[in-house]
Amino acid sequence: MSTPKDPIYLDHNATTPVLPEVVDAMLPYLREHFGNPSSAHVYGRRTHAAVETARAQVAALIACGLDEVTFTSGGTEANNLAILGVSAARPERMHIVSSVIEHPATQKPCAYLETQGYAISHVPVDETGMVDSDLLATVLSSDTALVSIMHANSETGTLQPIREIAIAAHKHGALMHSDAAQTTGKISFGVDELGVDLLSIVGHKMYAPKGIGALYIRSGTTIAPQLLGGGHEQGLRSGTENVPYIVGLGKACEIARADGDEASERIRNLRDQLWQRLHDAIPGLALNGHPVLRLPNTLNVRFPRVSGNAVLANAPEIAASTGSACHTEDASASTVIRAMGLSETEALGSVRLTLGRGTSAGDVRTATDALVRAFKAVSGS
Amino acid sequence: MSTPKDPIYLDHNATTPVLPEVVDAMLPYLREHFGNPSSAHVYGRRTHAAVETARAQVAALIACGLDEVTFTSGGTEANNLAILGVSAARPERMHIVSSVIEHPATQKPCAYLETQGYAISHVPVDETGMVDSDLLATVLSSDTALVSIMHANSETGTLQPIREIAIAAHKHGALMHSDAAQTTGKISFGVDELGVDLLSIVGHKMYAPKGIGALYIRSGTTIAPQLLGGGHEQGLRSGTENVPYIVGLGKACEIARADGDEASERIRNLRDQLWQRLHDAIPGLALNGHPVLRLPNTLNVRFPRVSGNAVLANAPEIAASTGSACHTEDASASTVIRAMGLSETEALGSVRLTLGRGTSAGDVRTATDALVRAFKAVSGS
Repeated sequence: MSTPKDPIYLDHNATTPVLPEVVDAMLPYLREHFGNPSSAHVYGRRTHAAVETARAQVAALIACGLDEVTFTSGGTEANNLAILGVSAARPERMHIVSSVIEHPATQKPCAYLETQGYAISHVPVDETGMVDSDLLATVLSSDTALVSIMHANSETGTLQPIREIAIAAHKHGALMHSDAAQTTGKISFGVDELGVDLLSIVGHKMYAPKGIGALYIRSGTTIAPQLLGGGHEQGLRSGTENVPYIVGLGKACEIARADGDEASERIRNLRDQLWQRLHDAIPGLALNGHPVLRLPNTLNVRFPRVSGNAVLANAPEIAASTGSACHTEDASASTVIRAMGLSETEALGSVRLTLGRGTSAGDVRTATDALVRAFKAVSGS
Repeated sequence: MSTPKDPIYLDHNATTPVLPEVVDAMLPYLREHFGNPSSAHVYGRRTHAAVETARAQVAALIACGLDEVTFTSGGTEANNLAILGVSAARPERMHIVSSVIEHPATQKPCAYLETQGYAISHVPVDETGMVDSDLLATVLSSDTALVSIMHANSETGTLQPIREIAIAAHKHGALMHSDAAQTTGKISFGVDELGVDLLSIVGHKMYAPKGIGALYIRSGTTIAPQLLGGGHEQGLRSGTENVPYIVGLGKACEIARADGDEASERIRNLRDQLWQRLHDAIPGLALNGHPVLRLPNTLNVRFPRVSGNAVLANAPEIAASTGSACHTEDASASTVIRAMGLSETEALGSVRLTLGRGTSAGDVRTATDALVRAFKAVSGS
C-alpha cells in the first residue's frame, strides 16, 4: 500500500487503502462491462445484475433485506438522505435528537433543519466519549422525528449504546439512524441487533473507494428522496448507478463478512501493543475514549504538556492526525475531545493513531520509537 | 470495448465505455495513492494535488476558472445542485423556466419546487426539437430565478440556442443553467461563449465512469449547497472527494480537448452514412431532430408503420434503444418525440442510434443490414 519511502500509515479512520481484491472485482466494470443498468439490452442487463449481486453482499454483512439497501455517493449523502429525508417525510414532527460528537455530515443537516424551525437536541457525552442513553431518553417526545447517533466516533473510537437508544426512541415513535461509517467492517453487527431504522455505510472507511456508500432503510420506513431524477434505487436515489464502485463496496462487504472478527482481533492486538509500549515509555500519557467499548483499531492518546501536532511534526516516520480529516485545516482543539470534559490544552495534546489491515508488528515498533523520540524532542525531556 | 459475441453498441447517449487511457489514469489512485485529500500528511497532499490537476483539466475543456468547477457524483447531482441551490439562494424569485424535453434530473427538482409554491414555465419545442428562444423570452420576468435548458437533448441530439436564451434570461436578472451532459466532449464550447452561469458535466457520457460529474458555477454566483457536511469543494459540495473518478473525469476532459473536433467529425461521417443507407433502403424512414444543429453522434429515426421496440427486438446484432435509458422500463411513447408534434404511433416507431469513439465503418454496415432486415421482418414488406 505504501512505497518504501512513505511514512507508516496510521490514519485508517480518515480513509483506508482499497483492497487489491476490491480493485480486481471492480476492474471488469471499468474496462469491459460499461452498460447503463437501466438499458434493456445485454450491456445493461449485465451491469444491472452486478449491482444486485453487490446489494446482496452489503445486505448480508449487516443482515438486512435486499430492498433495504440504497446505494449513495458516500457517507455524507447517506447521512443527509437519512436526516433530511426522514424529516421531510414526517413534517408533523419537528424535533431531532443528535449528539455533540457527530460528524459534520450529521451536524450540518441538523443545523439546516434548525434554520427551518426544527428543534435540535444535542445530547452530551461522558468522559469516555459515550452518549448517556438514559439522559438521551429524557429529551425524547412525541414531536421527535428522528434520533441520529453515530455507531462509533472516528476520533476516540468509543462505541455508542445504539440498541438502548433505539429502544428509547421507538417508545416515542421516533426513528433511529446511526452513522456506521467507522464500525462497518471493523466490528460485526446486524441492523436488527442494533435496532436501527436507518444506518449509513461508507466505502472508503472499509477498504472500498471514496465516492460510494449505502443507506440501510428498514422496510416500511417512509423517506423523501433528496436527489431527484430518473427514479433509480426504488425512487429513493436518482442518478445512474456507479456500477464499478457498487461492485467494489459489495466485495469489501463480502470480505469483511468472510473475515468475521479475525482481522479486527489481529489489529486490536497490535493496537494494544502500541498503547502498552507508548504508555510504558511516556509517563503521563493518557487514553482518550472508552477503555474497552471502543473500535479495535483506534488509539487516541493524550501527550502531557505538548501539542499533538508538534509530536506528529517530529515523527515523520508515521502519518497520523490529531483529529478528523474533515477538520485538519483547522488548528483548533477537537470538539469531540473537549466534549468529554477535557481542557483545550489536553485536547490539543491528543493524537489519533488508527491501524488497519496493512499494519504490521514492525510498523507498531517503528511508530512507538518515532512517537517516543518525537515526544522527548518536543517536551525536552 | 465489446467481446466478440456482444452486439454492436449504438447506445452511447445512454452511457459510454470508459476509455482505456482514463482507466489507466485512475488506477494509481485506486491501487496506491489512497490518502484522504483533507489529510495534512503526504498521503493527503498527494491526492489533493491530483484533484486540483483534474480540476484544471475540466476547466480547460470548458474554458472556465479553476474555482468555478465543483465536482459532484454525476449529472443528477449537478442538475439538482444547480436548480435547488440557485432557488434556495434567491428566495425572492419564485419562478423557474425550463423546457418540456429536459432530463428527469431537471424536471423532478422543478416539480419539487412547484410543490413549494414556485411557478414553473415549461417552454415547448418546435418540430425539430428546438426550444424557441423568442417564445422563451416572453415568459421571463423579474421573478425568474433561473432558466434551465439542456444543451442538447439525449434522444434527438438537437442543439439548443443556449446563448440566445442566456442573453434573454440575463436581461431579467435570471441565472442561466444548461445541462451539458450530452455535449461535453462531443462538441467544443466555452462557458462564456454559451453565456451560462451554471453548466452540468457528466463523466459517463464522455468516456469517464458513472458516478462522477461536475457543475460549473460562474464566479460570483451565489448557490446554496445541497449536500451538507465537512465543507469540501469550497463549501459547495461536502463529502470526501472521489479521487480516482475525479482524476478520470479530468483525463477524459484532457483527451476531449486534445482531440478537438476530430473524433466528432469521424463519428459524424459514420452517423451520416448510417442515415443515408437506412434512408435509401427503407422508404418512408424519417429523421427525428434537427437536420443540421444536432449532436454529431446521434441519429433518431422513425420507422413507418412499425414499433421501434419490435425493430430492435429483431435486430440482435445491435444494442440501441427507443429513448432515454432513464425511461426504458416504460413502454409508453417518448415524451420528447411527442413534444415535437409527432403522434403516439410515430413516437413509438422511433429508434435512437448513437455512435461513439469505438464505432467502425464495419459496425455501420452491419447495423444497417440488421435494421433493414428487422424492419422487413416486422413490417412484412
